Parts: sequence; C-alpha cells; structure tokens
Amino acid sequence: MTDEIKVFQDKLTERLLELDLEKEPKELYQPIHYTLSLGGKRMRPILAIMAYQCCAKDWEKIIEPALAIELFHNFTLIHDDIMDEAPLRRGQPTVYKKWNKDIAILSGDVLMVMAYDLLMKAEYDDFKYLLRLFNRCAIEVCEGQQLDMNFEEKYSVSEGDYLEMIRLKTAVLLGFSLELGGLLGGMSKEEAAHVRDFGVNIGIGFQLKDDLLDVYGDAQKFGKQVGGDIIANKKTLLLIKAIELAEGKQKLDLHNLMADKAIDPDVKVRKMKEIYKDLNIETIAEKAMNDHFEKGFEQLKALEEGSYNLKPLKQFTEALIARDH
Amino acid sequence: MTDEIKVFQDKLTERLLELDLEKEPKELYQPIHYTLSLGGKRMRPILAIMAYQCCAKDWEKIIEPALAIELFHNFTLIHDDIMDEAPLRRGQPTVYKKWNKDIAILSGDVLMVMAYDLLMKAEYDDFKYLLRLFNRCAIEVCEGQQLDMNFEEKYSVSEGDYLEMIRLKTAVLLGFSLELGGLLGGMSKEEAAHVRDFGVNIGIGFQLKDDLLDVYGDAQKFGKQVGGDIIANKKTLLLIKAIELAEGKQKLDLHNLMADKAIDPDVKVRKMKEIYKDLNIETIAEKAMNDHFEKGFEQLKALEEGSYNLKPLKQFTEALIARDH
Repeated sequence: MTDEIKVFQDKLTERLLELDLEKEPKELYQPIHYTLSLGGKRMRPILAIMAYQCCAKDWEKIIEPALAIELFHNFTLIHDDIMDEAPLRRGQPTVYKKWNKDIAILSGDVLMVMAYDLLMKAEYDDFKYLLRLFNRCAIEVCEGQQLDMNFEEKYSVSEGDYLEMIRLKTAVLLGFSLELGGLLGGMSKEEAAHVRDFGVNIGIGFQLKDDLLDVYGDAQKFGKQVGGDIIANKKTLLLIKAIELAEGKQKLDLHNLMADKAIDPDVKVRKMKEIYKDLNIETIAEKAMNDHFEKGFEQLKALEEGSYNLKPLKQFTEALIARDH
Repeated sequence: MTDEIKVFQDKLTERLLELDLEKEPKELYQPIHYTLSLGGKRMRPILAIMAYQCCAKDWEKIIEPALAIELFHNFTLIHDDIMDEAPLRRGQPTVYKKWNKDIAILSGDVLMVMAYDLLMKAEYDDFKYLLRLFNRCAIEVCEGQQLDMNFEEKYSVSEGDYLEMIRLKTAVLLGFSLELGGLLGGMSKEEAAHVRDFGVNIGIGFQLKDDLLDVYGDAQKFGKQVGGDIIANKKTLLLIKAIELAEGKQKLDLHNLMADKAIDPDVKVRKMKEIYKDLNIETIAEKAMNDHFEKGFEQLKALEEGSYNLKPLKQFTEALIARDH
C-alpha cells in the first residue's frame, strides 16, 4: 500500500468515527460503531477518491459521499452475516452473534438510512441522478445476495448465471464507487459511466481472483483455510466449470466428492484439485479473470483522449490485481 | 369512509400494483408484491393527499411520493414482524412465516430502496430538504422499534418514555406524511412543519386510543381479542399508570397478576380491569389522548389565517378519532 492510500484510509476511518453514534437507544448505535471500528481496507471509498482525483485535486471534498458507500457496504455485511450465519467478520464476532438477530436487522436498517444521509453531502448539480444510480446499485446488491443464496440450493449453475450473480453482489458497488468519484470530480455522465464499467469488470475479476486464491493461494498469506470453497461445495467458477466439463467416471467422482459428507476435508480438497488439474480448471478460470481485467481497462480508453490523470487509478488497480492474498 | 377517501385508496392500490414486481429473483419480488397486495387502509399516503389538498387540487401529482411512505411503512412491517415473531398481518401469514427470515430481511431492504426511488418523483425545488426529513423520520421509526423492544424487558417504564416511544415508532411517520403533502402542495416549510406537528400529536393520540380500545373496545367491532395487551403485560399507558399509581395491597395484586403465567387469561383481564377501575385509569388515559388531539388541532391554527382549505383534513381526522374499532 502506498503512503497516499494510507492517508486516504486513515482520513476515512477518522471521519467514520466522528459520526455521532453516542446516541440512544444504544442497542441501535453501539453495533454500528462496532462495525465501523472493525477496520477493513475501505476499498470502495478509496476507489471513489481515486476516480475523483482523475480530474480534481481537493479530494477531502468527497470524503463524506464516499463514506456513504462504506456505510452502505457495512449495512449489507451486517444483514448478509445473519443470512449466511457467519460467526466472524474481520476476526471479530458478527453483530448478530455479539448482540442478536433483531438488533442486527434494525441497526443495519439505520446504517442504510445513514448512508443516504451522507450521500446528500455530495456537491453535484443533478443530485437526483446520483441518487438514481445509488438506488439501482443498492437494489442490484440485494438481488445478488438473493441469487447467491439461491445457488446454494442448486446442484448446477451456469457460468453466465454465476458471473451475473457476482456482478450484482460485489462488482456493481465498486462500479458505483468509481462513477460517483468521477461525476463529483467533473467527468461527464458518459465518461463516468465508462469508469463505472471499468470498475464492474475489474470487480468481477477480483471475485474470480478470490475464487482462485481460495484453491491455489498460499495458506499463510491468505489468512484463511485454503480449499474452504471446495469443502463447502461453493459454486465458484472453478466448480461450475468442473461440473460442466467432467465426463464419465470423472463426473461420477466429482458428484460423489460433493455428496460425501463424511469425507476428510483435506482428502476432499486434494481429490478435487486433481479433478481440476485434469480439466485444466485453473487456466480456464485465470483466462476468465484476465478477460474481465482486460475488458475493464479497455473502458478507460474512452477517457484517455481527455485531460484526465488516469495513472494513479490504473496503478492502484494493478496493485490490487497483483495481490496474492 | 367517504367516497373521496375510497377514490384515493383505490388509486393508491392500483398504482402500487402497477409497480414492476414481475422481476427476478422472484424470491425477492414476490414477497413485496404479496405484502403490497394485503391491503390496509393506506392511511399514510391518504394523509399526504389530504395535506396536499389543503392548497392544491391536482392530487394525482403526489400519488408516487405519497406511495414512497406506504412502501417505507411496509418495509418496517416486514422487518418488525420478524422481530416481534408475528405470525399474521392483516389476517395473512407474515413474510418471514410464509417464506423465511432471510427473504424477509432482504425483500424488506429492497422495499426500502424502492421507497427512496418513489420519493424521487416528488416535484419540489429543494429535494434534499424532503430527503433530509424522510431520513430523519426513517431513523426515528427504527429508534422507536428498538425502544419498544427494550420496554418488553423492563418491569416499569415512565409515562414520558412511553409517549416518546410511540411518538418515534408510529407518530412521526404520520407527521412526515402530512408534511410531505403540505410541502408539495405549496405550503412554506414553516407551515408544513405545523401540519407535521399536528400529525405527530394526532398520531400519539391514535396510539393511546388503540391502547384504550384494546381494553374497553367492543370485541366484535375491534376484530381482535379484547384485553390482548393485558394478557401480554404490554406496557401501554394504561399499565404504566396503574403500576405508577397502585399502592399497598393493590400494588402487590398487580405485580402478582403480571407475574402469574398460569392464570386464566379471562380472569387476568377481569382482575386487571378492576384495578384499572379503582385507579381511574380509563379516565386518565382518555385525558392524555384528548390532550394530544387538542394539541394537534392547535397546530393548525397557524395555518388558518392563510388561504388553506383545512376542512377536509380536519373532518378526516375527526372521523379517525371517532372510530370505535
């Protein structure tokens, strides 16, 4: 992480913790303060700042609208953790575990309204346009979460459906972050839409990278169990392609591996990786990932003829792409 | 109900069912369609129309922003029903019962975003002002729900705390409905704030009326079990005043009645009503209710000097006050 990103991150966290959360009823505001204090990379507001900086210098001006995205993101985490029954978030108990489900629902709701409140700090002539984009993005994120839950119940999911799900669940919010930053910095709506589409494609690529790291990452750097997706039968692009491509005995082996609830997890991971290897899954998934990264960067070409300083945004994205954990 | 109100109601329901809800994923949109189809009096959007009509005639213009309030209200019902473990809403299974909690959380979230989308249809110069009022109201409604849940855990709640809870949980949304209608109709911000305060006080009065009807209403007209609040030890103003005023043996009887889990419900209701009678609770609660109605109508005096046609709004409110179920 460069020093500049660290400056953004610190300022964002500082402002987050300046929000007035010492309010009653404390059952509602303490979980919000707790969630915002857990840290995180603040990647979405940083992307907004990076896009803003393509055209303008006074980045402190968009701290508050950029934080609207961070609040929205944390609202989705609090509600998703209930649905996914996730006990931990950033190494700490999730809100519904630390308090209870009712409090997690309601403090999430408040956080969402607070996101709208911060978005209103945006200095932009056509504010309703921003709001329309934000609403669309918010609804898409919910749709993505629902699709993700639906996929858990299905044996097979198509590649197209999976890519659409991760587009909705995680990529559109990265896209909106960049679009918001671009618009507030002074880009035209059309230009900002290109930056958004850059973000959406990069976001899909990031998720595919996560799927790959879960299987092929370095356990020590990754910080969580390698093969967790395999053990949980998570329908990542890797498993989806394997189900699609396996034939004959291999198809049967794959099916049995997924159905065997008594199997030793390490054995399951090892055997599944053998199937992946035979089917060339790593290469296939890497190609899909790189295609999205490429498609993303192509979107920036529309802006290169202008007088925008795209270099820091590109470098930041390249660094995120190069991460190995 | 007058013919005019029926016209509003029908139009509101018609427009609600015109919302595009035939979308995927259906797990998200079917519960929303279901909730909006359950009916209800549409009191909040009707109040918005009534306030609008104090100054303007073309009421169809505010149908959509008025429906934003109905969507927001239904969002709170879907989430509250999870927290309150309510099996039925308007005689039909609640969303979390008919589907599940995850779907109820997520479809509620989508409904909330849809409310913001409809609010954007408001034709008003200072749109951010409307949004700020809406956000404040939305947060207050959540705070009210949290306080209501907190009160369930407490033996005693003060009269002031109870009135503040019902102000937040139910009255401020009636207030916002009227304020929105007034602003869009052409009132000044100051005038619309008076209509809001009218609505907040009337709303508190309505809740006190509900509390009274639960104990003293006609079972057949009321449509639910009379005494339900007493059986559940619900901290209504009646119980709060009884706990406050009871002394000596009566205090002990009251405490025992509340603590006795094996008691026959009819006996509990009869004995509690005897205590209420001795302590003059009905009269005390009626006075508190009427004080709020009076305080509400006083707010309208600030508008009477203007050229507003307040009569239909007053008549509608009087009719709601006079209802006996």
